Amino acid sequence: MTATTQTAPLFKRIALIGFGLIGGSIARGARIQGLASEIVATARSAATRARVAELGIVDRVLESNAEAVAGADLVILCIPVAASGDVAREIAPHLAPGAIVSDVGSVKGSVLRAMAEHLPANVHLIPAHPVAGTENSGPDSGFAELFINRWCILTPPDGADADAVEKLAAFWRGLGANVEIMTADHHDKVLAVTSHLPHLIAYTIVGTAEELEGVTRSEVLKFSAGGFRDFTRIAASDPTMWRDVFLTNKDAVLEMLGEFQEDLSKLTRAIRRGDGEALFDHFSRTRTIRRGIVEIGQDEAAPDFGRKHAALQRPAE
Amino acid sequence: MTATTQTAPLFKRIALIGFGLIGGSIARGARIQGLASEIVATARSAATRARVAELGIVDRVLESNAEAVAGADLVILCIPVAASGDVAREIAPHLAPGAIVSDVGSVKGSVLRAMAEHLPANVHLIPAHPVAGTENSGPDSGFAELFINRWCILTPPDGADADAVEKLAAFWRGLGANVEIMTADHHDKVLAVTSHLPHLIAYTIVGTAEELEGVTRSEVLKFSAGGFRDFTRIAASDPTMWRDVFLTNKDAVLEMLGEFQEDLSKLTRAIRRGDGEALFDHFSRTRTIRRGIVEIGQDEAAPDFGRKHAALQRPAE
Repeated sequence: MTATTQTAPLFKRIALIGFGLIGGSIARGARIQGLASEIVATARSAATRARVAELGIVDRVLESNAEAVAGADLVILCIPVAASGDVAREIAPHLAPGAIVSDVGSVKGSVLRAMAEHLPANVHLIPAHPVAGTENSGPDSGFAELFINRWCILTPPDGADADAVEKLAAFWRGLGANVEIMTADHHDKVLAVTSHLPHLIAYTIVGTAEELEGVTRSEVLKFSAGGFRDFTRIAASDPTMWRDVFLTNKDAVLEMLGEFQEDLSKLTRAIRRGDGEALFDHFSRTRTIRRGIVEIGQDEAAPDFGRKHAALQRPAE
Repeated sequence: MTATTQTAPLFKRIALIGFGLIGGSIARGARIQGLASEIVATARSAATRARVAELGIVDRVLESNAEAVAGADLVILCIPVAASGDVAREIAPHLAPGAIVSDVGSVKGSVLRAMAEHLPANVHLIPAHPVAGTENSGPDSGFAELFINRWCILTPPDGADADAVEKLAAFWRGLGANVEIMTADHHDKVLAVTSHLPHLIAYTIVGTAEELEGVTRSEVLKFSAGGFRDFTRIAASDPTMWRDVFLTNKDAVLEMLGEFQEDLSKLTRAIRRGDGEALFDHFSRTRTIRRGIVEIGQDEAAPDFGRKHAALQRPAE
């Protein structure tokens, strides 16, 4: 890629390992923004590699992780988190000295530990998590605007090089994201509540609805606009990615689940006892959270997430 | 209203009791579609009545329920379900013989029983539930397109007049809805899973996130795009309406909640034991439900509910 921009590209060569929703969105955004002189990519499956080549978004598609990282000054693992350790071990001997090695995983503590033990001392390991996504996956699902006004959390280990951290932060800001820095452990606790628990609950309730006696699947689909359909979107997320999230962030997820269970018990008791006041109070409080999210630009102000509605046809006059 | 349409309006006078999201959307849609020669409305609060008059959507705004229903051949209660019985008693002496009396409540069994005991034998009680809505409420929140391609469920009691049922069905089809007929009890079971349980779960998790130790409210808002924000929309729904739903559909909701709890226990156990295969299998199954909902047009095919994304600004060249 040879986009000439006002300022020099941040990186000479970015290597993307994995080309799903996130990897593909980084490639598209980085190319538009001219954040690198060259973007190379690889993926585990030959079919994905072929499709990436066909899409023509990156400069070169390479057959192996080792080839992909050679000479790269930024390497980003865009793969399910449980694979991070193995890939780190595989690429370690091939990394250029001074390279920044990062990822996009939804869990940071286990990833940091799994990668750190394999990487040489002369590269900068700076894990990252862009808090953005859609329910789609695969090489065609990405788009350059995915990260705009979303947050990207960096979790540099103790003693990380400040310049390398700032350079990676600048890269994410170049993709449109806001950047926040915190410890990996704190990240995993925060995301357990804002992302992992919601996914688990959504996966659960969608499964529940599928197996009921006395209510058909067709009825569940038809009358899903009563609220259920909102849950089906995140319950359609990539199964491999989410399996790994729950396996690698077990403790924080189980802790949040405990809190959720206590709260659900309280509301269940209020329903059983017919305690309308307790229900009303709870339902009034939760309204303000939505308002806060819309106010800081993290969701649509338009009702119903801005879902489109067909127009009524006025009968002929 | 004097819209001249190809066919005569279905009703001479529609009386809307209550003018929130649903009442306001019916008024707007019925006006555009010319479904009635006259639409009158009332609301409990003087402020709402004044606002409805100001909006100019209906022909007349009346001070009392008794005045509103006088001479109407279709009366629709658009109020929280727990108020249905009292309003039925209040309007009973003022209803025109032969009038259809309906509602839009999210619970049908208790509403049917509460209303039936007060209404005279010479009117047609046909409860209805349009399965559509947004998180907004109040007289300004309605819009004419709300019901397009959504389902409206009619739950006529045994022995209901077939012509009256068909006339009400035609009215809802005129608003763009599909119509389904079922018993009130079956409705309450179906909606417990497609609407009431999802709302309860959403209200719970949003409350949980608000009260955590170690994770600030600001963090919950900022990183909500990881999934949490999807839940906040329905947890921002009208508290009075939802209090009433849980008080009047207690049994079906508690039954569904039991099913949900069992399923959540299974997934929790899989996480605790590190059973990746069980998680992967579950997460793969739920994906197909989303696909089904999109295929039958009950949700957006576009990723992320079609939420808008700002464009990336390419740096100057």
